[in-house]
Amino acid sequence: MTNSPRTITIGLLGCGNVGGALLPLLEQQRASIAARTGIDLQVAKVAVRSLSKSRDVEVPEALLTSDAAAVVGDPGIDLIVELIGGIEPARELILAALRAGKPVVTGNKELLANHGAELYAVAAENEVDLLFEAAVAGGIPIMRPLRESLVGEPITRVLGIVNGTTNFILSRMSDAGASYADALSEAQTLGYAERDPTADVEGFDAGAKAAIIATIAFGASVVAGDVYHEGISKVTSADIAFAARLGYVIKLLGIAELVDDGNADHKAPEVAVRVHPVMVDQNHPLASVRDSFNAVFIEGAAVGDLMLYGRGAGGPPTASAVLGDVIDAASNLTRSTYAAIGDLPRARIQPIDNVRSAFYLSLNVADATGVLAKVADVFGRHGVSIQSMEQEGLGDEARLVFITHEAVESNLQSTLRDLQQLDVVHSVGGMMRVIGS
Amino acid sequence: MTNSPRTITIGLLGCGNVGGALLPLLEQQRASIAARTGIDLQVAKVAVRSLSKSRDVEVPEALLTSDAAAVVGDPGIDLIVELIGGIEPARELILAALRAGKPVVTGNKELLANHGAELYAVAAENEVDLLFEAAVAGGIPIMRPLRESLVGEPITRVLGIVNGTTNFILSRMSDAGASYADALSEAQTLGYAERDPTADVEGFDAGAKAAIIATIAFGASVVAGDVYHEGISKVTSADIAFAARLGYVIKLLGIAELVDDGNADHKAPEVAVRVHPVMVDQNHPLASVRDSFNAVFIEGAAVGDLMLYGRGAGGPPTASAVLGDVIDAASNLTRSTYAAIGDLPRARIQPIDNVRSAFYLSLNVADATGVLAKVADVFGRHGVSIQSMEQEGLGDEARLVFITHEAVESNLQSTLRDLQQLDVVHSVGGMMRVIGS
Repeated sequence: MTNSPRTITIGLLGCGNVGGALLPLLEQQRASIAARTGIDLQVAKVAVRSLSKSRDVEVPEALLTSDAAAVVGDPGIDLIVELIGGIEPARELILAALRAGKPVVTGNKELLANHGAELYAVAAENEVDLLFEAAVAGGIPIMRPLRESLVGEPITRVLGIVNGTTNFILSRMSDAGASYADALSEAQTLGYAERDPTADVEGFDAGAKAAIIATIAFGASVVAGDVYHEGISKVTSADIAFAARLGYVIKLLGIAELVDDGNADHKAPEVAVRVHPVMVDQNHPLASVRDSFNAVFIEGAAVGDLMLYGRGAGGPPTASAVLGDVIDAASNLTRSTYAAIGDLPRARIQPIDNVRSAFYLSLNVADATGVLAKVADVFGRHGVSIQSMEQEGLGDEARLVFITHEAVESNLQSTLRDLQQLDVVHSVGGMMRVIGS
Repeated sequence: MTNSPRTITIGLLGCGNVGGALLPLLEQQRASIAARTGIDLQVAKVAVRSLSKSRDVEVPEALLTSDAAAVVGDPGIDLIVELIGGIEPARELILAALRAGKPVVTGNKELLANHGAELYAVAAENEVDLLFEAAVAGGIPIMRPLRESLVGEPITRVLGIVNGTTNFILSRMSDAGASYADALSEAQTLGYAERDPTADVEGFDAGAKAAIIATIAFGASVVAGDVYHEGISKVTSADIAFAARLGYVIKLLGIAELVDDGNADHKAPEVAVRVHPVMVDQNHPLASVRDSFNAVFIEGAAVGDLMLYGRGAGGPPTASAVLGDVIDAASNLTRSTYAAIGDLPRARIQPIDNVRSAFYLSLNVADATGVLAKVADVFGRHGVSIQSMEQEGLGDEARLVFITHEAVESNLQSTLRDLQQLDVVHSVGGMMRVIGS
């Protein structure tokens, strides 16, 4: 801590929801940050798409520019905060900043999930920080714990509720008995869901975040296209009610699993990364993550179970994550140091067919003797072991509800196919992967 | 990342529960850490009290020594891990290491809660790391998020379940209906509680952790002696049952609140730090933290609500936190940098009498008309506003249960005194501070 704080000048690219929350937060905290860190953070330029557009936050006219590239190239600017989003021009701007030796803070999940490895490598080559806490789970500190606290931890699996929109919708369906359509429309009214909700409800947004989490947790590059995903648009009120009766809550999870660390045969780590609805045991800490909150649950061989919970979106929480990164990068800059991820090997991706999980399966069957034996025989032939079964009469037919032990996805799928061939099986009521407590 | 990893030699002081878990974890992760960080971590010496004592972990004889000071002074050792615990000789050993320019990783909450400011200042003077993730909440990354991610966040309050023993006891009382004595004895049988459980059940352990959390969260030194504490030994099964009926769960919380940041008049921050049982709304995320798990709940003006959850004790989880710090310190050492807390001002401590909270109060009163009016009058005279009241007949007498709005502690205490003077009040059934959802 020095008596005369060192000034670090910031070029902010993008002044929307997050940028607009960052500016007043920075101003409000500037003196306290200087006192604690010896660094005076000063916003020197704010690049926006349109100079004439009205903004929630007042930006001095002298700071505003529509030329983002000029901000990056300005020798008077030390550090770049990229909050434009999307692939281009964000990628070119970040690369230019890194090559000019300027640390970059970004919240751009789409860019990192598609071009992360390139950016991490260029940052390391140029010995400069590229920090992105805000890209995953908004205000929750997850990237820094993974990159620093847990870099030596043998992490085996990460489960994340990393999309607030879908968690809100599923919470409304569970807690208020709303239908999917009503819950979605409520989310849209409240501004939690876009008019076109595809990116959220079909799991693309969560998939991008899962790719970033897997990359950092396992030290091997995973891209958005590697992530298997199913969304929540087919989850029905009946599924929710059934899950509740069995002691489960339905959540959309991003799941990143280490299949093989590759150390034994000097290969890159093999990982399975997927997003889909999961029946989560109601005693699991993720089950109590409600509304638009996010949480990331980390399983490590030494540390055991960890969960990091908080606001996954919104201007101020995300701006808080950006500010933490800005202070870190500025502090590193004054000490001529940086935290590199560096050159990552490409992860080997386990195909979804080979992934192991427990399953819930509900079948509508003929109410006759010998049905269970026929059904159980199909499970057995495909090596799928049943953990529990419940039978319920429904008048003319009966419903069989199974929870299986861990089974390979393809075996479950072929079990399902063969079950549908049985004349005693009238229809499949539902199928979902399951995570216990 | 370089091709030939740089070796950092470690001197480990203490090889008990945590040290004994750290050694195999380090060995198992050594190659992967070298691959990711370019640093080869090598344990050069292990100082123990008795060379002849049998240990769970096998330590090569050449590494063992009983001379901790010689390990600290050994020029062949780069970094010190202190896991001895207690004040002396840990304090002298850490000071010597810092003065010799060696980074120190410690899990010593007692030392930091009493002499933290001295140690942070000496670390900063000598431009060297002093890291202590393991000192608070075991394997949960809490110090690094507070020191780095949230250093720019206007944190207003931190609530922590930071003692696993008491959380286990309260969970058993809540979930299994056990008495305090039975739950304590079960905790002792399982090794969660010491034979003399005072430090845990009376809140001393949680108080030390609350002091460290407050210091880092608010940037001003708070010591163990500043922390007001009440333990759980007076919590009864009846309290637990009452709380449940009202929709609350009883938890022992460490609470650190910022009363005044002091910026306006250039003073040190004023904080209130206390440990006591709290009735927590059952919908609050802390309410679902069960058994011996720990969690720290952070309230920030920008970030909103955050919770960090995990294993707060135990060899492997705590060793995981130590390892994260070791990698960080080793990495900083190779880059000739460090993360200083530096010279902290002494916090101004708000006396417990001035602290504001909501309260639960249950009174056994005469079952007669006009009683409620008399009781309500006493509340009113002391400026304590009632949020909700419930009345229940008990044969000869009645029970009045109140939840108040936020009130100043001393006003609640004088309300209580005056209520006990009323002839219609037969006895006070219980009093507890309350935190909503």
